[in-house]
Amino acid sequence: MAMSGRGSRSRINAVTRRTFLKALGAAGGSAAVLGAMTAWGMAEDGSGQAEPPQLDGDVDGARVIVIGAGPAGLATAYELSERGYDVKVFEARNRVGGHVFTVRGGQVSEEIGTAPQVARFDPGQYYNAGAWRIPYYHRATLYYPKLFGVKMIVHKNINHQAYSYMENVRGQDGGRKMVLRELYGDMTGHTSEMLAKAIDQNQLDLDLTQEDQEDLLTYLQQEGVLSSSDYSYGPNNSRGVDQYAGPGNQPEIDSTPRDLLDILSFATATAQQASIIYRMAPLLEMQETMQTPEEGMSAIYERGFLPRLKDRVQFNAEVLEIHQSPDSAWIVYRNKETGQTEQHHAEYIVSTIPLSVLKDIPADFSSAYKEAILAGSNYLSVGKMGLQFKRRFWEEDEWIYGGITFLDNPQIGTISYPTWGMLTQKGVLQAYYNFGDDATQVGNMTPAERIETAIAAGERIHGAPYRDEFESGFSVSWDRVRYSNGGWSGWSASAREQYYDTLLEPDGRIYLAGEMLSYVPGWQEGAISAAWMQVERLHQRVMQS
Amino acid sequence: MAMSGRGSRSRINAVTRRTFLKALGAAGGSAAVLGAMTAWGMAEDGSGQAEPPQLDGDVDGARVIVIGAGPAGLATAYELSERGYDVKVFEARNRVGGHVFTVRGGQVSEEIGTAPQVARFDPGQYYNAGAWRIPYYHRATLYYPKLFGVKMIVHKNINHQAYSYMENVRGQDGGRKMVLRELYGDMTGHTSEMLAKAIDQNQLDLDLTQEDQEDLLTYLQQEGVLSSSDYSYGPNNSRGVDQYAGPGNQPEIDSTPRDLLDILSFATATAQQASIIYRMAPLLEMQETMQTPEEGMSAIYERGFLPRLKDRVQFNAEVLEIHQSPDSAWIVYRNKETGQTEQHHAEYIVSTIPLSVLKDIPADFSSAYKEAILAGSNYLSVGKMGLQFKRRFWEEDEWIYGGITFLDNPQIGTISYPTWGMLTQKGVLQAYYNFGDDATQVGNMTPAERIETAIAAGERIHGAPYRDEFESGFSVSWDRVRYSNGGWSGWSASAREQYYDTLLEPDGRIYLAGEMLSYVPGWQEGAISAAWMQVERLHQRVMQS
Repeated sequence: MAMSGRGSRSRINAVTRRTFLKALGAAGGSAAVLGAMTAWGMAEDGSGQAEPPQLDGDVDGARVIVIGAGPAGLATAYELSERGYDVKVFEARNRVGGHVFTVRGGQVSEEIGTAPQVARFDPGQYYNAGAWRIPYYHRATLYYPKLFGVKMIVHKNINHQAYSYMENVRGQDGGRKMVLRELYGDMTGHTSEMLAKAIDQNQLDLDLTQEDQEDLLTYLQQEGVLSSSDYSYGPNNSRGVDQYAGPGNQPEIDSTPRDLLDILSFATATAQQASIIYRMAPLLEMQETMQTPEEGMSAIYERGFLPRLKDRVQFNAEVLEIHQSPDSAWIVYRNKETGQTEQHHAEYIVSTIPLSVLKDIPADFSSAYKEAILAGSNYLSVGKMGLQFKRRFWEEDEWIYGGITFLDNPQIGTISYPTWGMLTQKGVLQAYYNFGDDATQVGNMTPAERIETAIAAGERIHGAPYRDEFESGFSVSWDRVRYSNGGWSGWSASAREQYYDTLLEPDGRIYLAGEMLSYVPGWQEGAISAAWMQVERLHQRVMQS
Repeated sequence: MAMSGRGSRSRINAVTRRTFLKALGAAGGSAAVLGAMTAWGMAEDGSGQAEPPQLDGDVDGARVIVIGAGPAGLATAYELSERGYDVKVFEARNRVGGHVFTVRGGQVSEEIGTAPQVARFDPGQYYNAGAWRIPYYHRATLYYPKLFGVKMIVHKNINHQAYSYMENVRGQDGGRKMVLRELYGDMTGHTSEMLAKAIDQNQLDLDLTQEDQEDLLTYLQQEGVLSSSDYSYGPNNSRGVDQYAGPGNQPEIDSTPRDLLDILSFATATAQQASIIYRMAPLLEMQETMQTPEEGMSAIYERGFLPRLKDRVQFNAEVLEIHQSPDSAWIVYRNKETGQTEQHHAEYIVSTIPLSVLKDIPADFSSAYKEAILAGSNYLSVGKMGLQFKRRFWEEDEWIYGGITFLDNPQIGTISYPTWGMLTQKGVLQAYYNFGDDATQVGNMTPAERIETAIAAGERIHGAPYRDEFESGFSVSWDRVRYSNGGWSGWSASAREQYYDTLLEPDGRIYLAGEMLSYVPGWQEGAISAAWMQVERLHQRVMQS
């Protein structure tokens, strides 16, 4: 899950663990699945696969059609072609990457039913309208930039100099913004003080030795920056200062905390809204250090995969039909450059088409397979916008270098600041990242209305520069994007229980691959690791045939 | 304070605030000081000076000698020469930067009484043996890379995939390492659970409305990843997972917390040892986002200042004597290239020589001034080492991209991982950063012994690769470094009270500048902001003369 924004927490794991254990216990027909699991997930440290499968044996130039040049398609094509397969990739768009989509100047929008947009970003400016950050433990994703020498930089997800902006809270801070550092520092201080005093005054029924109690008090004193004498939370510099240390007679002056009751409602709303990052120990997938290619996420595919696959990728090839017989598999596609309808034949097909699109493509799938595709085709609506500003006012005026500001305006959700090009002149903000119905609502606006919505929200936080320094914007509403029809797969627990396993298996000569065949939906990791899984299975089959 | 390592916390501010208020109330003779304070530190937001002083008027080519080509010296020289002053910088070394010292291959050591070292780092590899990170609010420091277009990247200070390694703790984890994520996650969970249950069971005398109590419980539930039903802390993915989510039938499996009493002693030791960073809300100067030049900290001076000052910097010029008369000021220096003793005359001198060195240079200072220099000359002993490894095993094997591992071995203190060159082959770790007596002890070792000390400590944490993949090391013990005699200034409260103000004023035609004239010792910010302060004072005097 790339970023669910609100609500869903890791309690999902209670369900998935049961699913997993059930799968582990299953017999009959799933021996292959269990074999794959052993290969893929059950390393002693639970780390999953860090490298693509070793494919041994002579493949004798077996032909494979790969549909889609996103992460799953290119990983499939690369690994198979490295091993001697005769691979051809058919991509409906004129670019690689799929949902990995770095928008640079000149980029044309791909939405259906929205007025066309052309990105007017300056040379060197961009934003990632799709995948934008890679967690440190996504080993399959990180494998390729290392292999291809794609330069990586830190993506700062967490920056406590950014804000929380909550309108719908009780108390005096409703409708205002707070610097996350002050909010988090004060909440940690106040709650540490409460617990430390309760322990110190023996108000709790704790079965602690004297030594343990002293340790715990010391811990809380450190954690909350409490007074070591009476465990009170007072002025400190962790929450900020009234005066920064400077030259001459300019000592630092600690700032004074705000009262708990003045910020409690605000903090609680923030913790709920932004829990995935607000916490010190956020969801694993948001923890530091995240990385991203310096030149935009598409660089992994444009500069990494594409030069190594060049002649094997056919762009502007919109697949119209998918066919198979006992002996072969083929596609019918429209060559958008010539307008002609053409065919291509192979022994196998690996389709990485999103289920939300695949469901409408005539294909020689069994009815059970079609049913499963339909069951998994309910993709999440996701939207993003990039705004270019004349001046990085968030750095110059507000000292924010990367990180995320949280809003309780769900049409915006977050404003994210770039962690590249710091201290340069211009920059592109990620001005919103919305989900579900909120994303659909914003997607229903014209591009100009979307920009106005973003600016109106941003200027309430950043003031006049957010409007005055604005230069250009480019938005993507993924459920309107042709060939995507949504952000990423959204298996319900019941649909996954009933249909998911079906799609892990090939239907005849046709395999699927993509993030929808993983428990890492919406991340490149899901797409690439699922591709590796299917590559290995396909290869085993070729070797046995 | 660049990083005090252990112990000293922001309670220092209780003292400095008094000093400050006292200074504010002082009359007679300090009008200039107070004027400067208004200019320098008392902006409404307490932000200090973000830009160098505006110097108006015709300076008529007034000549100024600047001694030292570190941050203070180069900032002084640049601002004055931009304004029309005839500036000459005399630098005893053959490099700029002073305590800003990016060690690259071929660099020769500068220590006295230590066997010579030559850095054997590969091309492109380096570590910063001096300043290495810039906090987001150090506006004077960040002014120059922006002005000069020096490319900046994120310096990751905080990474919870790194370790705490504590030997001297009670309980089963003594002598072992813990991943900071697990340790912090569990402590936050357990303490949140304790407080939430106490509140829920009305064990505390809290004067909260029902609404506030519910908010607080919700907050703690979010913060501690507690069960929303009974506020218990259980399996979660924030502390880590037993299995990572993956393709096929590989769901994520939450990991199970460790018991509070199993980790309490370990966590308390970590919080004390690493409090400046371990906490979510660490000391302000350690908070995200920190930055550093991509090519090493020296790049600000080598690529920024030096090309703009080139002819005005004389290297290998060791100042032997500092003189002044009512009409002029001059230095006697040894030209280390020719071996000759030479003189240079000007109207004014700005000395950025560390007080620990200046105290031994014959100079026409008043006895009160000499006394103040001596009082401030007790500099902190600081040591660092960089180790180059054949392979970035901390990334490949342990998934650590930047951040800091903490040890309770004070000769090592910390191991820090580079946040540049991620996913490339080789890398240079900062293998220790020690202070005070510990730094002195390590400094007394031979370079080879220092390396063995570092490797012996590191392999207890990182295992065999720390020795097997080692290629070369280079250490700096700053109190042995010629022309430095220490890491940075260490004003005691009493010495600052009694002597500091004296040095803020010029002695005749001689001004001092450097981090020792600030409340930001050991940071470039202190050096540059103090330089700006003295530049403005000098200019005001020139305009009035």
